[in-house]
Amino acid sequence: MSGTARTLLYGVGLGPGAPDLMTVRAREIILCADRLVHFCKRGRRGNARTTADTIVAPDPAREIELAFPVTTEASVGEPDYDGPIATFYEAAAEQLAAEMQAGRTLAVLCDGDPFFYGSFMHLWRRLSPRFPTEVVPGVTGMTGAWGEAGAPITWGDDVMTVLPGTLPEAELARRLADTDAAVIMKLGRNLPKVRRALTAAGLAGRAIYVERATMARQVVARLADKTDDEAPYFAMVLVPGEGRRL
Amino acid sequence: MSGTARTLLYGVGLGPGAPDLMTVRAREIILCADRLVHFCKRGRRGNARTTADTIVAPDPAREIELAFPVTTEASVGEPDYDGPIATFYEAAAEQLAAEMQAGRTLAVLCDGDPFFYGSFMHLWRRLSPRFPTEVVPGVTGMTGAWGEAGAPITWGDDVMTVLPGTLPEAELARRLADTDAAVIMKLGRNLPKVRRALTAAGLAGRAIYVERATMARQVVARLADKTDDEAPYFAMVLVPGEGRRL
Ligand SMILES: C[S@@+](CC[C@H](N)C(=O)[O-])C[C@H]1O[C@@H](n2cnc3c(N)ncnc32)[C@H](O)[C@@H]1O
Ligand SMILES: C[S@@+](CC[C@H](N)C(=O)[O-])C[C@H]1O[C@@H](n2cnc3c(N)ncnc32)[C@H](O)[C@@H]1O
Repeated sequence: MSGTARTLLYGVGLGPGAPDLMTVRAREIILCADRLVHFCKRGRRGNARTTADTIVAPDPAREIELAFPVTTEASVGEPDYDGPIATFYEAAAEQLAAEMQAGRTLAVLCDGDPFFYGSFMHLWRRLSPRFPTEVVPGVTGMTGAWGEAGAPITWGDDVMTVLPGTLPEAELARRLADTDAAVIMKLGRNLPKVRRALTAAGLAGRAIYVERATMARQVVARLADKTDDEAPYFAMVLVPGEGRRL
Repeated sequence: MSGTARTLLYGVGLGPGAPDLMTVRAREIILCADRLVHFCKRGRRGNARTTADTIVAPDPAREIELAFPVTTEASVGEPDYDGPIATFYEAAAEQLAAEMQAGRTLAVLCDGDPFFYGSFMHLWRRLSPRFPTEVVPGVTGMTGAWGEAGAPITWGDDVMTVLPGTLPEAELARRLADTDAAVIMKLGRNLPKVRRALTAAGLAGRAIYVERATMARQVVARLADKTDDEAPYFAMVLVPGEGRRL
C-alpha cells in the first residue's frame, strides 16, 4: 500500500543476533509498536524475540506468538509440511488482520533481514495489499558471519552465490565450482552433504563454518577443523572470494 | 589481532544511506572514536560521511579524508588505475598507522557493510595484522534496495547470485540464465551491457532498477520502464526470486 496512511504493519529486521546490531530504526519501532509479533517453535521462544530482550522486556499483554505447527518431523517441500504450514500462515495473517482492523500497529520481529529467506514474507504477501506496510531492512545473518569470521567475502569483481544447504548434492557441487565466493545457508542436518559438495568443488580447504554468528555461544572454525557433523539451525558455511587485492 | 587489547581500528558499516539504518553499535562507535575516517573523491565529500551527518557534525580536527587519486579517467583492472590506487592505499594505511601509534581510535566510515566489496578491505588487510581491529557489520546496499523495492529477494530454496556489472556481457548473461534471484552491483556506465545480458537471459521483464536506495533522490522502477541508460554509481538491478510460496 502506498500513500500517507499510517503504517500498521512493520516487518522489522533485527540483524544477526547481537542486540546492538539492530538498526536505530528497528529499535525505535519495537519500542513504539502496539504489538510485538514473533515466530517460534511450539513451547519455545523465537530467536528474534530473544534478540529484542535487552530493548523490550517481556510483556504478555503486548506480545503475539506465532507458533509453527510442525518442526523437524517433516520438511519444507514435502506435502506433510507444506499443507499445515500454509494453513498456519493463513490463520496467522487473519489474526494479525484483526489486530490492525482494531487500529493497532504491529512489529513482526525478523531474524536478519525480513526479505532474505524470511518467514515474514509469507505474511507480507497476504497482508501488504490490505494494510499500510513498511519493511525495515536488517543486517543479514551472513553479513554478521563474515564479519565475525574476519573474512571479507567479495573483492574486486568476485561473483557471490548464496545457496540453501537443502539443494541436491550435485547441484551444490556444480554451483560451488562455478563461483568466486559462496554462502551456504540452512545448514543443520545438511552439513555432511554440504561437506561432500565442497570437496567435489575443490573448496573444502577454504570453507569457514560459522554457528550462531554474533549470538551467545558463537562458533567460528575452519570447516576442515570441525571434526563432527552436528550443526544447529543458525549455522552456515562461507567461502570467501579471492578477487583483486589493491 | 586478538585478545584483550583495546580496539584501535573500527571498520564501521553505516548501511545503505538513511542515517537511521545504521546499527546501534555503529552509532555508538562513530560518536566515541577519536578520528572519523572516510574515503572520497578529490574535492568531494564521501557518501558514508554524509550518512553520518545527522549523528556527528563536521569537525575538521577530528576528520581524516582519504581522497582517491583517480576517479573515472581510468578503471579498476587497468594498469593506469591499479598502480596509483595501490600506492594510495599504502600511504593511507601508513597515515592511519601513525594515528594509532599515537593511541588514537579510528572509525573508518563504510557504505553498506565493510566486508562486501568495500574499499575498507584494502586498509584492513594492511592494518589488522598490526593493530586491534573490529568490523561492525552493516545493512548492505542491496538489502536496502530490495526493501525499498517491496521485493522479497529469495523464497524457499532460491539460489541468489551477486554479480558486478563490470563482468563481460556473455558471462553476465550465462550466470543470469542459471540463477533464481540476482543482484547486479556497480551499475554506472555498465547499464546498457547489463540490459542486454538480462534480455539474453530472458529476465528483462522481471528486473527492477534501484538508484540511491534509502537516500535522498531514491529511484525505484521496473527496468523496462526506465527509458534512458544513465545510472549513477549508487545503482543496482534486482531480479527477485520466484521460489516456493507457502
Ligand atoms: C530462513 S533463513 C533466514 C535468514 C535471515 N532472514 C537473514 O537475513 O539472515 C535461516 C538461515 O539463516 C542463517 N543464519 C541466520 N542468522 C544466522 C546467524 N546469526 N549465524 C549463523 N547462521 C545464521 C542460517 O543458515 C539459517 O539456517
Ligand atoms: C564498491 S560496492 C560497495 C558495496 C557496499 N559495501 C555494500 O555493502 O552495499 C558499490 C556498489 O554498491 C551498490 N550500492 C551500495 N549502496 C547502494 C544504495 N544505497 N543504492 C543503490 N546501490 C547501492 C552500487 O551498485 C554500487 O556500485
